[in-house]
Amino acid sequence: MPVQEAIKETLTALVPKGSQTTLGVDMIFGVPGDFNMEFLDQIEDFQGIEWGLNTHELGAGYAADGYARIRGIGAVCTTFGVGELSAVNATAGSYAEMIPVVHIVGTPSTVSQQDGAVLHHTLGNGDFQVFGRMFKEITVAQAFLTPDNAEHEINRVLRECLLKKRPVYIAIPSDIAYKQINVKWEALITEPENNPKDVEEDAVGHITTTVNAAKRPAIILDACAHRFHVEKEVLDFIEASGFPVYSAPMGKGVISDFHKQYRGAYLGDLSVPSVKEELEQADQVLLIGSIKSDFNTGGFTFHLPTSRLIELHSDHTLVHHAVYPKVGFRGLLPLLAKSLNRREWTLGPPKPVSPQSTIEPSDTVIRQAFFWETYGKLVSKKPYAVTVETGTSSFGSSQVKLMDGSVYVSQVLWGSIGFATAAALGVALGAKTRQQPLRTVLITGDGSYQLTATEITTFMRHKLTPIIIIINNDGYTIERYIHGAERTYNRTGMWSYSKSLEFFSSPEERTKNYLPEFGLQAKIISPAALEPCLRQAFEEEDKIHVLEVVMDKMDAPVGMVNQAKVTAKENRYGGEESNEV
Amino acid sequence: MPVQEAIKETLTALVPKGSQTTLGVDMIFGVPGDFNMEFLDQIEDFQGIEWGLNTHELGAGYAADGYARIRGIGAVCTTFGVGELSAVNATAGSYAEMIPVVHIVGTPSTVSQQDGAVLHHTLGNGDFQVFGRMFKEITVAQAFLTPDNAEHEINRVLRECLLKKRPVYIAIPSDIAYKQINVKWEALITEPENNPKDVEEDAVGHITTTVNAAKRPAIILDACAHRFHVEKEVLDFIEASGFPVYSAPMGKGVISDFHKQYRGAYLGDLSVPSVKEELEQADQVLLIGSIKSDFNTGGFTFHLPTSRLIELHSDHTLVHHAVYPKVGFRGLLPLLAKSLNRREWTLGPPKPVSPQSTIEPSDTVIRQAFFWETYGKLVSKKPYAVTVETGTSSFGSSQVKLMDGSVYVSQVLWGSIGFATAAALGVALGAKTRQQPLRTVLITGDGSYQLTATEITTFMRHKLTPIIIIINNDGYTIERYIHGAERTYNRTGMWSYSKSLEFFSSPEERTKNYLPEFGLQAKIISPAALEPCLRQAFEEEDKIHVLEVVMDKMDAPVGMVNQAKVTAKENRYGGEESNEV
Repeated sequence: MPVQEAIKETLTALVPKGSQTTLGVDMIFGVPGDFNMEFLDQIEDFQGIEWGLNTHELGAGYAADGYARIRGIGAVCTTFGVGELSAVNATAGSYAEMIPVVHIVGTPSTVSQQDGAVLHHTLGNGDFQVFGRMFKEITVAQAFLTPDNAEHEINRVLRECLLKKRPVYIAIPSDIAYKQINVKWEALITEPENNPKDVEEDAVGHITTTVNAAKRPAIILDACAHRFHVEKEVLDFIEASGFPVYSAPMGKGVISDFHKQYRGAYLGDLSVPSVKEELEQADQVLLIGSIKSDFNTGGFTFHLPTSRLIELHSDHTLVHHAVYPKVGFRGLLPLLAKSLNRREWTLGPPKPVSPQSTIEPSDTVIRQAFFWETYGKLVSKKPYAVTVETGTSSFGSSQVKLMDGSVYVSQVLWGSIGFATAAALGVALGAKTRQQPLRTVLITGDGSYQLTATEITTFMRHKLTPIIIIINNDGYTIERYIHGAERTYNRTGMWSYSKSLEFFSSPEERTKNYLPEFGLQAKIISPAALEPCLRQAFEEEDKIHVLEVVMDKMDAPVGMVNQAKVTAKENRYGGEESNEV
Repeated sequence: MPVQEAIKETLTALVPKGSQTTLGVDMIFGVPGDFNMEFLDQIEDFQGIEWGLNTHELGAGYAADGYARIRGIGAVCTTFGVGELSAVNATAGSYAEMIPVVHIVGTPSTVSQQDGAVLHHTLGNGDFQVFGRMFKEITVAQAFLTPDNAEHEINRVLRECLLKKRPVYIAIPSDIAYKQINVKWEALITEPENNPKDVEEDAVGHITTTVNAAKRPAIILDACAHRFHVEKEVLDFIEASGFPVYSAPMGKGVISDFHKQYRGAYLGDLSVPSVKEELEQADQVLLIGSIKSDFNTGGFTFHLPTSRLIELHSDHTLVHHAVYPKVGFRGLLPLLAKSLNRREWTLGPPKPVSPQSTIEPSDTVIRQAFFWETYGKLVSKKPYAVTVETGTSSFGSSQVKLMDGSVYVSQVLWGSIGFATAAALGVALGAKTRQQPLRTVLITGDGSYQLTATEITTFMRHKLTPIIIIINNDGYTIERYIHGAERTYNRTGMWSYSKSLEFFSSPEERTKNYLPEFGLQAKIISPAALEPCLRQAFEEEDKIHVLEVVMDKMDAPVGMVNQAKVTAKENRYGGEESNEV
């Protein structure tokens, strides 16, 4: 079969082990370019994979990342040089956040490469490996395909992608697009190795002795429980144990926010005081899938001592200072569900957490607290695929409870603004054809929206009907809290955000029924208008809505302000000229 | 003085040797981020450098490139990781095209780096050098500043930037922003070395003997005559020699299109037949500053034999097969102006070149030929800074004559779509405060516009009044001619392009006089409307205009179609499934 088809058939057939979904890739994101169009022909002609129709490569890369978060794997296809480098920030983000994305690059023909031709889209120096070298820094495997190596290399890089949950890079010269190769399909995907039995037995013994002797064992859920799709193993373990459960910011949604054992988000000193006090009484804490980044640990104020920490990771286990190599949580959790004594703490219902604004309530201006409260009532009625931007959107939404079956996407570690808008496109496309389709809610800020707003046209081309909420606080409010509150550089130009659907489409396309039905396109200023508009957007499920919600530029969720203070301190520069907020 | 100020003072003070302008950098482009705001404070506070206010980093990088093409050097400032990687495609383009851009990155504090902290905007692995390594591939010098090395390193990298006309990379940790250092200003910029006298004498002798013995010597101008700012030396040489002059696509505008010795563009087999025939009669050709890329040589059909070629480069000279190392054209040209015998060919006036469309003229639809003719009459009346996108815009505009003093910006080698819109921002800002200010004309296509359209807001924030022309041919027409004419992937979503000014601003900002006065915002469909609209846009110089000009999706300049055929052939893939156009 043709080389390209081998990749696509493989992508379609992928079934991430343990995934709640059983689908592979049915959408490849990207932008056409001079060296990838041979591949794009085959995408259009191939049953089972559609083309993403993105406006730019960065958007395509973010969309592939969002899609992979929903479906277990994603793919983006760009052209050599100009295309791949435009997407590199998205691929680096997928690396940081452990999202398996296959980045496919159409390169100049093998003949041009051998000649060292000074082609357009090259640096003009005959070096055709330079971009591949750059991608080696941010992908876990790279393949430069030839007909001879294609079967082995496709197999190898896709396996690495799925096992390590990080992006991989596949370069395909334009002239080998239709070369015939033989592929043994059954060999393509290899399952992760089982835990080594003897090491695993020791680990189970050590944990069981330790935890059964503890008075108040607790559980913290984190990102890698999502990334390695062990949600089911985690839930079974939680319910068998009876222990109270907390989540790190990146672990939001591993179990339902409404689960009876779920107590709230733990992020060190930046936690809600009642949660912090409660968790820090635990004498043994099982940390499942943790990533200890600044924004995920309350700025490194996550001070549980090692003598109370048991860390279950995808590929190793830590019991205090003891390391159990190669013992991953997928195999370990079912054993612990059996071996640990069931214990419940005598705790009342968790204290309700109300969103807090930095500014007092108002009758005339929409406050952050009021917005999150109003939104929270509507979004918690059924499951949604909620995608939120770094900044007020992620800090505000992190405390809003989502129903069981929801998906919550946020880029806490990489934190690249502009991510959410384009990632939501991938989320929406991934969620639409799931066994249980979910509607997508995107919440972003005006400053972030400006980086990838052009992808609104792509939502419309795919006839998607998300709710798009743009918090317009006149610039980069999170930056204002880190540094330079009154600086001009933290203001963005003001757009007519609520007109996005009209601008990013044309009346003719609307008439021709090329687009989804338009719902609300509203600029919401008064608190009284907020709830009716949000309600309408949630109720009219078959329409796309854009709600621009105007807030004060210094209004922010209190959690964000606390995090910003920590970041400002980390950046610490001494001296008289500081104007730290 | 503070480290950051040292960089800025240096940038401000830069006087590129031989530049027609005598100004350094008065604008740094970029986007604020968590690790560069300390620097941004100082830009706002510093007299003589303004902040670019871009919407995204890729736009900022392109703008710095456009600015550098006008002013001799440009600068962009991004934050660590997410910011710098979003701009990397622009920096790689500056490398390919030989544009000196200083890429300044605000990085996490030295303390965080020493701790290997898992900060946001990192890959989460404690590696703070990874992005610097990626930038080593596409910059000619890199500095990782400390107070101790700052003076030396700033000096070193800026010198490399100016001498090699390629981008450089400066990383500044957030905590050293205000550290005091001593700087010896006079040492900062070093002039390029003079040619070695003895080698130069030999080269002059060899060229003089060869060319004086020739019957029909001719000159071809190319990109590096721009890049190394030898326009004056070139003009003096041309006028002393009397030889006929041709230009490669990247050499457009080195001398005036109306100069009496100028004969037209030479691009091998893709030249206008009369120009090809005329030049190929030359028995010795002096090639000044050539870059032999595919799009600059008619797809490598530039078949002048080595026995007729004398190549004058910035740092070496070739006479047929003889290499004269270190003999650069800056020193050589004045010597040749004296030593070569003056000769004029007996040539009539050059054949007028009319733009040609792939489609017949029409009374109801605007054709490419009609558009370029109409535009040509208006743009040639006075000097403009014309910035054109890859695709129909660059191929069409390449044959339109520009007046002496004009600037013509096009990214022929790197060819990254989206470049022109954001580069025009830098061009406009660079051209505005030149000794002889130029108004900017941007010509782009709908597909390309979608990548960087958000920068329209930045034009408005700087109160710029360019003419923005968007050729709306319903997708990627150049791609359609390379491959996949009828493919869905070569269609973009249709936008309401003519509403760009309204969408990328708000009524309030207009009322507050934050924006330039709006001129035309027109969607032009009928041929009869084209000339009046273009005329109004050219006449109303104190307003910003957006003209969406609708053309057929398969209408294109004939030169572009010929180039596309060559590219399709280079990509050659064999076999039955090909659908090559």
